[in-house]
Amino acid sequence: MRTFATISDTPKGSCSDTGCDPGIVLPERKLNEECGVFGIAGHGAMAADVTRLALVTMQHRGPESAGIVTTDGIGGMYHHRGMGLVEKAVKPQHLAPLRAGSNAVGHVRYSTTGSSSLANAQPLVFSFARGNLALAHNGNLTNAATIRAELEATGAIFQTTSDTEVVAHLVARSPEPDMTDAIRGALTDVEGGFALVLLADDRLVACRDRHGLRPLVLGRMPDGAWCVASESCALDVIGATFERDVEPGELLVLEPDGSLVLSRFAEAAEQRALCTFEHIYFARPDSDVDGHNVHTVRKRFGRLLAEVAPVDADVVVGVPDSSVSAATGYSEASGIPNEMGLVKNRYIGRTFLEPSPELRTNGVRMKLNAVRGVVGGQRVVLIDDSLVRGTTSMRIVRMLREAGAAEVHVRIACPPVKHPCFFGIDMSTYDELAAAHSTVEELREHIGADSLAFLDEPVMMRAFDEVGDVPARGHCNACFTGKYPVEVELTASKLGLERGLVGVS
Amino acid sequence: MRTFATISDTPKGSCSDTGCDPGIVLPERKLNEECGVFGIAGHGAMAADVTRLALVTMQHRGPESAGIVTTDGIGGMYHHRGMGLVEKAVKPQHLAPLRAGSNAVGHVRYSTTGSSSLANAQPLVFSFARGNLALAHNGNLTNAATIRAELEATGAIFQTTSDTEVVAHLVARSPEPDMTDAIRGALTDVEGGFALVLLADDRLVACRDRHGLRPLVLGRMPDGAWCVASESCALDVIGATFERDVEPGELLVLEPDGSLVLSRFAEAAEQRALCTFEHIYFARPDSDVDGHNVHTVRKRFGRLLAEVAPVDADVVVGVPDSSVSAATGYSEASGIPNEMGLVKNRYIGRTFLEPSPELRTNGVRMKLNAVRGVVGGQRVVLIDDSLVRGTTSMRIVRMLREAGAAEVHVRIACPPVKHPCFFGIDMSTYDELAAAHSTVEELREHIGADSLAFLDEPVMMRAFDEVGDVPARGHCNACFTGKYPVEVELTASKLGLERGLVGVS
Amino acid sequence: MRTFATISDTPKGSCSDTGCDPGIVLPERKLNEECGVFGIAGHGAMAADVTRLALVTMQHRGPESAGIVTTDGIGGMYHHRGMGLVEKAVKPQHLAPLRAGSNAVGHVRYSTTGSSSLANAQPLVFSFARGNLALAHNGNLTNAATIRAELEATGAIFQTTSDTEVVAHLVARSPEPDMTDAIRGALTDVEGGFALVLLADDRLVACRDRHGLRPLVLGRMPDGAWCVASESCALDVIGATFERDVEPGELLVLEPDGSLVLSRFAEAAEQRALCTFEHIYFARPDSDVDGHNVHTVRKRFGRLLAEVAPVDADVVVGVPDSSVSAATGYSEASGIPNEMGLVKNRYIGRTFLEPSPELRTNGVRMKLNAVRGVVGGQRVVLIDDSLVRGTTSMRIVRMLREAGAAEVHVRIACPPVKHPCFFGIDMSTYDELAAAHSTVEELREHIGADSLAFLDEPVMMRAFDEVGDVPARGHCNACFTGKYPVEVELTASKLGLERGLVGVS
Amino acid sequence: MRTFATISDTPKGSCSDTGCDPGIVLPERKLNEECGVFGIAGHGAMAADVTRLALVTMQHRGPESAGIVTTDGIGGMYHHRGMGLVEKAVKPQHLAPLRAGSNAVGHVRYSTTGSSSLANAQPLVFSFARGNLALAHNGNLTNAATIRAELEATGAIFQTTSDTEVVAHLVARSPEPDMTDAIRGALTDVEGGFALVLLADDRLVACRDRHGLRPLVLGRMPDGAWCVASESCALDVIGATFERDVEPGELLVLEPDGSLVLSRFAEAAEQRALCTFEHIYFARPDSDVDGHNVHTVRKRFGRLLAEVAPVDADVVVGVPDSSVSAATGYSEASGIPNEMGLVKNRYIGRTFLEPSPELRTNGVRMKLNAVRGVVGGQRVVLIDDSLVRGTTSMRIVRMLREAGAAEVHVRIACPPVKHPCFFGIDMSTYDELAAAHSTVEELREHIGADSLAFLDEPVMMRAFDEVGDVPARGHCNACFTGKYPVEVELTASKLGLERGLVGVS
Repeated sequence: MRTFATISDTPKGSCSDTGCDPGIVLPERKLNEECGVFGIAGHGAMAADVTRLALVTMQHRGPESAGIVTTDGIGGMYHHRGMGLVEKAVKPQHLAPLRAGSNAVGHVRYSTTGSSSLANAQPLVFSFARGNLALAHNGNLTNAATIRAELEATGAIFQTTSDTEVVAHLVARSPEPDMTDAIRGALTDVEGGFALVLLADDRLVACRDRHGLRPLVLGRMPDGAWCVASESCALDVIGATFERDVEPGELLVLEPDGSLVLSRFAEAAEQRALCTFEHIYFARPDSDVDGHNVHTVRKRFGRLLAEVAPVDADVVVGVPDSSVSAATGYSEASGIPNEMGLVKNRYIGRTFLEPSPELRTNGVRMKLNAVRGVVGGQRVVLIDDSLVRGTTSMRIVRMLREAGAAEVHVRIACPPVKHPCFFGIDMSTYDELAAAHSTVEELREHIGADSLAFLDEPVMMRAFDEVGDVPARGHCNACFTGKYPVEVELTASKLGLERGLVGVS
Repeated sequence: MRTFATISDTPKGSCSDTGCDPGIVLPERKLNEECGVFGIAGHGAMAADVTRLALVTMQHRGPESAGIVTTDGIGGMYHHRGMGLVEKAVKPQHLAPLRAGSNAVGHVRYSTTGSSSLANAQPLVFSFARGNLALAHNGNLTNAATIRAELEATGAIFQTTSDTEVVAHLVARSPEPDMTDAIRGALTDVEGGFALVLLADDRLVACRDRHGLRPLVLGRMPDGAWCVASESCALDVIGATFERDVEPGELLVLEPDGSLVLSRFAEAAEQRALCTFEHIYFARPDSDVDGHNVHTVRKRFGRLLAEVAPVDADVVVGVPDSSVSAATGYSEASGIPNEMGLVKNRYIGRTFLEPSPELRTNGVRMKLNAVRGVVGGQRVVLIDDSLVRGTTSMRIVRMLREAGAAEVHVRIACPPVKHPCFFGIDMSTYDELAAAHSTVEELREHIGADSLAFLDEPVMMRAFDEVGDVPARGHCNACFTGKYPVEVELTASKLGLERGLVGVS
Repeated sequence: MRTFATISDTPKGSCSDTGCDPGIVLPERKLNEECGVFGIAGHGAMAADVTRLALVTMQHRGPESAGIVTTDGIGGMYHHRGMGLVEKAVKPQHLAPLRAGSNAVGHVRYSTTGSSSLANAQPLVFSFARGNLALAHNGNLTNAATIRAELEATGAIFQTTSDTEVVAHLVARSPEPDMTDAIRGALTDVEGGFALVLLADDRLVACRDRHGLRPLVLGRMPDGAWCVASESCALDVIGATFERDVEPGELLVLEPDGSLVLSRFAEAAEQRALCTFEHIYFARPDSDVDGHNVHTVRKRFGRLLAEVAPVDADVVVGVPDSSVSAATGYSEASGIPNEMGLVKNRYIGRTFLEPSPELRTNGVRMKLNAVRGVVGGQRVVLIDDSLVRGTTSMRIVRMLREAGAAEVHVRIACPPVKHPCFFGIDMSTYDELAAAHSTVEELREHIGADSLAFLDEPVMMRAFDEVGDVPARGHCNACFTGKYPVEVELTASKLGLERGLVGVS
Repeated sequence: MRTFATISDTPKGSCSDTGCDPGIVLPERKLNEECGVFGIAGHGAMAADVTRLALVTMQHRGPESAGIVTTDGIGGMYHHRGMGLVEKAVKPQHLAPLRAGSNAVGHVRYSTTGSSSLANAQPLVFSFARGNLALAHNGNLTNAATIRAELEATGAIFQTTSDTEVVAHLVARSPEPDMTDAIRGALTDVEGGFALVLLADDRLVACRDRHGLRPLVLGRMPDGAWCVASESCALDVIGATFERDVEPGELLVLEPDGSLVLSRFAEAAEQRALCTFEHIYFARPDSDVDGHNVHTVRKRFGRLLAEVAPVDADVVVGVPDSSVSAATGYSEASGIPNEMGLVKNRYIGRTFLEPSPELRTNGVRMKLNAVRGVVGGQRVVLIDDSLVRGTTSMRIVRMLREAGAAEVHVRIACPPVKHPCFFGIDMSTYDELAAAHSTVEELREHIGADSLAFLDEPVMMRAFDEVGDVPARGHCNACFTGKYPVEVELTASKLGLERGLVGVS
């Protein structure tokens, strides 16, 4: 059995490969996000710049690496990738050569499979008989290990541990003469949840898995250039008009001349299955995902929570930043005042070096501090967006009590997470899910709250029906219910996807 | 007439002197803060670490440079200063030599006088006949130019453009045999608003100007070590107990053996004059300043604003992050729902390189985006903490309208800023103050709002009386009223304080 | 027709991708070297460290990027690659995870084909059905373009522009069940000049092309571990015993248990053809290459030059550093004193930013300065190792004259370079070779010398016979004579090898 | 008693204060050099650029920090200083603001007193009643501690540990109305060996101590601008004409209008005392110091050594790079061939991180490798420029023996160093001088040589008489003879000069 080193061996705080970065400061996230993609066709010398802007806007979807590839439509492909935030990974000066291309694809990454190294940074770029191909991918291919094994058996070599690389091989081996057909064929072989943007020499192809697990929207620039993005907020910021969500199973060909060719690579699944965590946690509050504004849904989660899990309390406190909308909703529905009982140090990030062991408990407070003047002597309703491992909740409850809170009632704006996700979210084994093995009462005791309540799945789904212009069109709630929209090769995916090479280049 | 180069000539985006920092990501601030100080005595090998933790917590008071000096009590003084955030300027590995000292002083800086260079980073460190002296200073000495001229006339040489350096010279020239007396003597000569921490070889001295313009609190570690900090949130995070605010004119000597010697260097001014902008904008929401919790006061500002400037509207939107508390207060008092109509990109900071000119307008949106789904078709009450230059408000109003807001009513949680500040806040000429030359109606027109209202000073001050355990004990509202607590050498301070050397070391 | 961006577009002086490197200081080279390789098997936890030491020693063969891959023999492969000198590209802290492997391969690179980016840094690492494979390559495969086209036609995808990647594909597609046989088979398909080290999961394979164009030596560590290196100086420094040169066409399998399995992948070519430029310029003076110490051969070049091209002069001056040995030889044979008439600034390197245009001529002197006190009024014999483009010689002659030299007689310690090289040296078109289009007299006039003489090829080859323990065993002098040892696909190689992807990752 | 931390506590390999420099590559030096200075007046916008070029040329005199200060003549003073090589410390982009000044002073530093931190980097810049003053200093003031104590007693405060700072205080306190007179007065108070360049707002002042211990030359640019430099090679490179050496005790005022005002601040000492180590080791081979070319003198040292200490041997080997001239001289005089028996890795420098302990002995070889093919079986004459601590010689002798040398005869091109230096060279206590406590025979045994010989002082001095246009005009050979040209406050200087503050800013 092959084993691999993990890159966590890399000395923390040392100069990383892509530059000495003594501590990028960014909000810490509870769950690892699953990447953001963007593509634009026929936008002249501004294609690379617009792509960078879009990636900056979708930075929350992937702070680990970023990359942009452009093509001039006649065989020249230009790319730049780097580790870290877009601001650092793709600097303005890096764009100079990329401006030679008017079609572009971009990617921000938070690894879910494959190790965290520059080699795995996307867009991946390949050269084969048809020319060049760049791929940007959000999601997970659940049968990637099986396909990879089949490809290797016939001589394929792999350079990354990314599941995305199998798509390139499938395209390269396709007998279809036309590139779009070759891509379509490759896509019929893969399963899972994905939004994928492929940049060939002469066209840009975008698609969304047939369940619609991962989001993708279509937009249009004032000059007529079509573009796609994981989130609508990127369209806002680049000045594009939101056209519509890409449909599950749909295949869009964005051509440099401004034409858009619509087709399908698969029938949409009977039951649409948009990942609910997009609204719960991942997407930016200003994005609309499949017809529902994220902030509005979150606030409604809070209102519903106040309805189904009321509590006699003095103050509502939301965990910043993700639970601010839900806390506002809870407060407005319950009439209990919404207070800033927890203050986040906005200057501390993921890579902040922990202080020496003696100060470690203070280290937690360094990131999040409870406000004695607000919670002292008060009965607190603590609103959090979700509860996955339980550790953070436990710490915050303790912190509130140390700041003098008389009672702490925890209200979680979604159901308990009881099942792993195989479609791109970093909660992939039962072991790490607190609610998989515990009753709500056990969880309450574990985190030390006076009371604990969740939103039931049916109640949660009401939020979608109650806000926005459209009712909920089908969501994947497998992490709450265990009902997966796709049959998952459990063993293979868990063992096999980790195969490959590990390194830090 | 001497003139000086400005360091803004330094090429943006290039590697700065203190390391290649390709874009520290931090919240952008409307006003420049005036530094944070910290000191601790007799805390053994942990003194440096605790100081770093405190500086990280007060990072919002000065992101430009940071420094720590420690002393072993027998003449050995160890220091490290660097440009940028604490995380980068003073890294854990830099602490190794500093752990030899058990008394420590730390500083985070946002320059108000003196150029922005490492040479001006604090704590400043000097050597003279009495031994060594390190100084950390928050505030402005309004008669520094006069004193400097006098000192120079008798042979003094200066190495920085910081007004703090005059204090060291005054101490060095004092005939008093005892160091504490020498410092006391020096302090009687200086005027202005300041919180000052001085580290001598064998003691730590802390004081606050006789008007109490700048805040300073006293705390105690579990092991009995005394400490002082600009804000109480630093005490929370390092695990110290908040003892009390330092009184105006008070001089505290913190001794390594755990004793605390209290005295005065000046009688407290008749009228206490705490800078109100600490509560309006500067201090962290979880700090208590002179008896009033910052978040609670801000929220009350919002409630009062709802009372005195009500408006018939659909949603309340606060400008993130500084106006979130006030927006909550306005919403709760008015019953108008509080919505996240503006979303901030938390990954973009001060040093983010603007995109190319064609994308500049998008650049604004890149930092702050209005949420169409929230404000579209709505009558919006926009809450902001203050209005200084007016530019930001104008942009935000325009952005809300572009996102479909039907009406935009701007409510500012303090009075119009009509007069410059000479005590440490970066608004020092009449020219840059929008309200100095315009009526409210002109301002409203300027920023493009449907209506505009401020909090009157008396109403604003009611907030302090209504919350917390103590009534307002006297504030400096000179920037609103023009009534300065200290006579300011206007010409001298404006011309003289800029004298000195300019450079980037 | 596909075209590609060149990475020279990257703004000079900006932070490069692999860290902010404000000017690596290293000797400037006239010709680009063609890489150095190293491999060791069964050396426990020290394998990675020893490899790094060997790479540092062979740094002169490739300052552009460096990399190390190790394997634990049971499927775990660990790698690190970086841009720049070994010191920076592979730092000691990077070795921590690599120490899990006891077999290692390392590479320093000076690109000859493929663009200069991290993606092309070696060792390349692949994963395929047989497991993992890492490749380190010195030289050029002259039929790589043809093979690549064939592979692509059957679905292969490429990630680099390196000709080395075809070897991995050939191995992956080999029907041979045994890995060594698969490698042997792959090698029979490629042509050109190469030294290649391949690290599979359970063995290390090393080989040298059948002409022996590129050097490779075999050594043994005191603990019995076998190792291979491009140059013998690496063996000295790591404490290994020099065993022998690897023979042309030979295939060595170094096994972790200390056994060495010798075989061939091809018959040695009838006529051995070691690249003479190894002795003329590339190799370190302390290396022995195919039986001849480099310094000793160079000094003999100088002696022979004195014999065949004597001149009545006052001082001998060698161009530092490469011509110091030859100058000593010339001086000793002629009796003319050897003087330091040219002084090199050892602190200036390849990436030094040119001063502003007004100072550009001084910029040349900044790197190399003629010593007036030494050459003033003197008749100078200037010794240089070779003359390729002629620009450097012209500048130095002018500089000597400006410093007062009465006469400057240039003596070149090899024949005129008249033909391009296709086996790994950066002089690949006729255009750039001064001697390809000019007579010696025209060259003399071009560089402004009073006289100019070269070593004839037969005389040059005498040096090998006259020094060392063995006579010259056959050299490639194609760049002097035009007689290539391998038939070169001229068009294909020039057009095709540049195909692929260009980027800076 | 005060004690101070040394900055060697700073973690090696970590990001330094002036940027992440993962290993500046530069030649390692046996002795620490004592700085280089440069000044130019009235050279318009090119003053800063020319100064940088001069500093790069004198880089060997100080790789630790570099700085440039310019002034526009009307009170504006612009400066930039940084740690490390000029290339990194003062980058071209840093020059932009400095080009506003047409008078400039520059400095490269290798600390002799004062700690190694940016705060001590020169030129130091001060502001006082007369305006601004920048100082660049090479050498040591032997009575600095006494003066500093006197200054401190009357209220002076110091910011650096540099002895140079006392000069600024003396100037600031001078009653003389004219700046030149004030400087002249200050200089009469200081003792020691120094070359000093002072930049005031309206003039540039340069001087050399009355013994002429440290060198300083006067040059002129083609446009008539006067300049001074520590070494003549800097004049060559910037295109200036060498005018003459500055005389001991002389005071030059370089005015922006092109005039040069000559005067004295002291009578020249009866006996001139140029530091002989300038010719032995410090200065660049292409410099002329007080009338003697450095390379020529060194080669003559070698010839004389062959005369007075002949040996029956096979090869002469010089230790690179400093002993190459002497080895050539020895070889030519003795007729023994000069060979490259030691090869230096030119890519490894001062900051190279030592490999792990197991490889440490290889680490030495990594920097310097003996060539078996050259020295194997041979009787070697090893030429070194000097022998201070003996450690390096011991290692090299051992390395030559391990490479097979039959005999190793060490010949040192100067007398034994028996006495410490107080004038700027880093050999300041008897303890560290091998020859202070041992006979030549004991030294021979210590370093393991077959024979060991030095140049006697009288013989060494013959070299100066025999070469160049002038006879030796008086040298300081105190480190060989113990006869100091200046009475040194031994205790004070050793204890006192280390006083002050230690830190890394």
